[in-house]
Order: sequence, then C-alpha cells, then structure tokens
Amino acid sequence: MLGEFELIAKYFQRPARRAALGVGDDCALLDVAPGQRLAISSDMLVEGRHFLSTVAPERLGHKALAVNLSDLAACGAEPLGFTLALALPRADEPFIAGLAQGLFALAEAADIELVGGDTTAGPLNLCITVFGQVPPDQALLRSGARPGHDVWVSGQLGDARLALEVFRGRCSLPGSEFERVRQAMELPQPRLALGLALRGVATSAIDISDGLLGDLGHVMQQSGVGATLHLDALPRSAILQAQPEALQRECLLAGGDDYELLFTAPPSRREAVLEAGRQAGVAVTRCGTVDAGDARVVLDAAGRPLPARPRGFDHFRA
Amino acid sequence: MLGEFELIAKYFQRPARRAALGVGDDCALLDVAPGQRLAISSDMLVEGRHFLSTVAPERLGHKALAVNLSDLAACGAEPLGFTLALALPRADEPFIAGLAQGLFALAEAADIELVGGDTTAGPLNLCITVFGQVPPDQALLRSGARPGHDVWVSGQLGDARLALEVFRGRCSLPGSEFERVRQAMELPQPRLALGLALRGVATSAIDISDGLLGDLGHVMQQSGVGATLHLDALPRSAILQAQPEALQRECLLAGGDDYELLFTAPPSRREAVLEAGRQAGVAVTRCGTVDAGDARVVLDAAGRPLPARPRGFDHFRA
Repeated sequence: MLGEFELIAKYFQRPARRAALGVGDDCALLDVAPGQRLAISSDMLVEGRHFLSTVAPERLGHKALAVNLSDLAACGAEPLGFTLALALPRADEPFIAGLAQGLFALAEAADIELVGGDTTAGPLNLCITVFGQVPPDQALLRSGARPGHDVWVSGQLGDARLALEVFRGRCSLPGSEFERVRQAMELPQPRLALGLALRGVATSAIDISDGLLGDLGHVMQQSGVGATLHLDALPRSAILQAQPEALQRECLLAGGDDYELLFTAPPSRREAVLEAGRQAGVAVTRCGTVDAGDARVVLDAAGRPLPARPRGFDHFRA
Repeated sequence: MLGEFELIAKYFQRPARRAALGVGDDCALLDVAPGQRLAISSDMLVEGRHFLSTVAPERLGHKALAVNLSDLAACGAEPLGFTLALALPRADEPFIAGLAQGLFALAEAADIELVGGDTTAGPLNLCITVFGQVPPDQALLRSGARPGHDVWVSGQLGDARLALEVFRGRCSLPGSEFERVRQAMELPQPRLALGLALRGVATSAIDISDGLLGDLGHVMQQSGVGATLHLDALPRSAILQAQPEALQRECLLAGGDDYELLFTAPPSRREAVLEAGRQAGVAVTRCGTVDAGDARVVLDAAGRPLPARPRGFDHFRA
C-alpha cells in the first residue's frame, strides 16, 4: 500500500523551476521581484458541495487549481506557485494519478509549480492556496467601481449551473450538449490573461464564483455603489438560450461556478476593454452600469425591473 | 442562521495591519521586503486524525495555526500572515467563536494576521497556509547536516503522545498530570524565536511532527547522512519519566505532535546553540551525532543499539 511520503514523491514532487525551494522541506521558498506585491488566495473544495462524486479525477484536479487561479485573475495578478493540502479517504492510486494529471496540466499551462502542501487521510477535501504577484498600484480590487462606469463580464454565463440542474434531474439535454455544459462546470478556464490585460483599464473586478448577482453585490458593497444590469445583454451559450426563460434567468444571475470575470471600467475605456479581450482571446460583454446609491436592479428585455432577485450562493444557507 | 459572509465578517475579518490588503477581496496582498525570500507552508487538520472531538475549540484554533508556524520556525523564517480554509458541518457559533479566539490569540502573540481564506460546509477540516520571510542565505533547510555535527532537540519530547495513549485507554494518569500532557498535545508552542536565533548557527532543522525518528529520517535522507541518538539524553518531563520504559521509548522516538525543533550544528557552535536557546527562552538538548553512511542508530543507557525502531507517523499506514 502506498504510504504518505511515497504518495507525495510519486505524484506531487516535481523539480522546482521558479521556486527557490519547492516540495520537501518545512516550507517552500519563493522569491518575489522588487516592486511587486504578493497576491494570495485560498479555496477549499469538498465533495458534494463543490464537485460531484461523478467527476473524473483529472477534471477535479483542474478545477481545484482553476478556481484559485481565477481569484488571481480577478486581482490582475501573475501566478507564481501554489500549495495543495489533500485529505483522501484512502490512497486510491488511479484517483490520485488522475488528480495530479489534471492539476499539473493546468499548472503547466499557467507556468506555475506546486511548491508544497500536505496530505492526510480524511473525508475527500482539496485545499489549494495560490500565490501571484502584481505591482502595488495595479491590483484590480473590488472597491474601485464608481457611478457611471460600465459593468462587463467575460465569456458566457450560466452553463455550469445548467449542467448542475441536469445532474439534479430538473432538466435534460442531448448527450453532446450535456457534455458541453458539463465541461463548463468541470473544466472552468481561469481568465488570467484577461486579468493581466485589464491592469490599468478596469476599475474593479471579481470572479463569478457565487453567482453574478451575489458577486456583483460584493463589488457594490465594497465600492459603495449600486448597479443596473440588462438581462438581455448577458452572454450565454446557444444551449442555455434554448432553455425556458425562468431557468435561463436563474442560471445567468445566480448560477455560480462560472469563473468568468465581472469588472467595471469608465465608458471612456470601452475600446481598451475590447482590446484587452482580444489580447486575452476571450469575449468581453458590456451588460450594465454602476449607479449611485446601493440598489441592484435587473432590467428585462422591455426595460422593466425584474421583481424577484435570485440570491448568490451561501454555503451555510444553500 | 448565520450565513457564510456574516460568519467571515463576525469571526474572521480584522483590520489589516501588516498586509497591504487583507480578508475580503479575491486575493490578499502582501509586501515582502527586498532581500527576503517568502517562506510558505500549508497544513490540513482533520477530526479524528489530527485532533479528537473532545478538544476545546480554542485549543483547536491554537493548534491549527501552531503546527503551521512550527514549519516556519523550522525554516528560520519570520512569520508574516496566514490564510484559513475551513469546512464546517454546520455554522455552530460557540464552536466558531472559540476557534477564532484560539487562532487570533496565537496570531497576535506571533504578530501576524489572517489575510484571507475560505469557509464551506463539509466534514470538519481546517487548512491553514502560513507565509514568512527569511533572507535567502539564512533559511534552515533539511539538507545541511554533515557527519560530525551534533544533533539537538528543543523542549521536551513525548508528552503529546502520552496524552494520546491516555485517551486511547492504554495508560492512565492523575488528573493534574493528565491536564499537563494534554496541554502538550493540544497547545503546542511553535519555536519561532528559537528558529530565528538559530539562523547562521544550525546547519539543518525540522520540526518534529511525525515523531523524532521519522523526522530525523527526513533530515538524513535530504542531507545524505546517518545519525546516532542517545536515548538517555532525550529530554522528557517527570511525568513521562515515571512511565514504563517501553512506553517512554515509544513516546520519545515515535510520538509525533511534539512540534519541537530537531536541528544539527557543528561541535564548534555548542555555545552559540545554548545562547540561542537562552535568547528564545527554551531548553536545547544535545542528544546525538550525525554520521557518515545512512544508518539510524539509537543507543540505550549502556551504549547498546536498540533492536526495534518504532516508525514515524504515516497518515496512510497508521
């Protein structure tokens, strides 16, 4: 049977490239360039909450790192490295090998390395902490939105939630469509290049993990502003577009797990935002306006405010 | 009922002092001084593995941070901040309040702050990642032990394991003695001041979390050396000293959860090591020698090698 230290050595220990010291001592050692601020984010994934037991281990490895990198993207930070703490019910080698494969494939794509962590027996739980760097005056914060700024989102929203509703049996999709929305749920793409391209352009940013309205609420609260969203403007896939309107609305506004960027910028920077999207190879869509006050309004196609506001995701209320 | 964001705001959000940006955005932002290397360590604590359900939440909060700070100490790093990812079966306020109290009491003693993290519903699990800084040439690594160096340990060993054996019903202790060894198990003191004082003095260091022999094995492997330990020289409490010899030996050599420092230094630096101990206010005891080769030998009081070698702790083999 595979022991703890063999497990680490076999699946998780790789030669350090960027880190001064990687896996295998009490701490990892990382040099940060002068004039840079270290950006840190930590996310924990629990089976049944953040992923279903049906997920392929490769996809789970990808997603665990992706949701953390998404936080760096939302900060405009350049990724440097990450730690992984892993609780496993047992040392199941095919599972661990798949997990490591998905994790390192994304790490290599982002040009970062695993610098340390922990493994233990316990109910399946993945905790990743990522580190990045950003010049002190260029970090994208939640607090910089001002009345009159445009509200933008990257990519398309709602497909991850639609996949969840299929798993829950609330709706069904043909096999090829199900696989596409399932990829949105299981293989989210952290918008790192967009976050970097939005430095000096966006005035605030957040990644959409708890649902568009919930995450917009965080920006509003920290910026001391309100916002108006145009439901029709929200970018969605043809698959979601074909669903009943109530389901579409729920997936778009309160979906969660989108891992797209929600950001604001002055109207004078519209061309710069579009250029950032082109540079990063991801669609950016203008979908609302920052208002004075603290109201969050969603307008339907006819310009009428929606009565009900689906809430963002709260782990102790869901 | 307490929601996720209220839970964070009420118990875990404090004003940032050292961090450029603390809890409440996508990332925390931390400045690292020029000429410093960032030291990072991550540990996960699972109920039934790393702590018993009988532990007071204050002590659990203390221990979760202490075991991470202990890794910084073993690296000779000065702590800067930490993240906390927390999975909770439910939002149990007295538990969370106690946990936060124990956590922040130790954080304040170490002059660091919580800079971010995550909370989620799930089987009880605490994952802490700590950050510290150390000048590039002064980090205490596991790889610097050389034949002829002395082997030292800080504090006393084995009491935490003795407490575990009482909980397991293998032995019993009078109430006041039980409380003392239980404190060793539940309130370990990270040896941060000693780690700093040993910069430039110790040639290698590790914190004893998996048991003395297991952790000595990590140093031996990474330094490419062997070692001889003198069982009689290992520092122990009067309570442990009064136990049967086989139990004493097991607690000292394979106890785990000691969170003392095991380190090496040349014989020419003995006075400097003792001075580091005095500065840090912790006893340091010379208990062995680094050898050429790769053998790990424990000598009894008569200088005879012990036949059996209890193993260190392995989470997938225990």
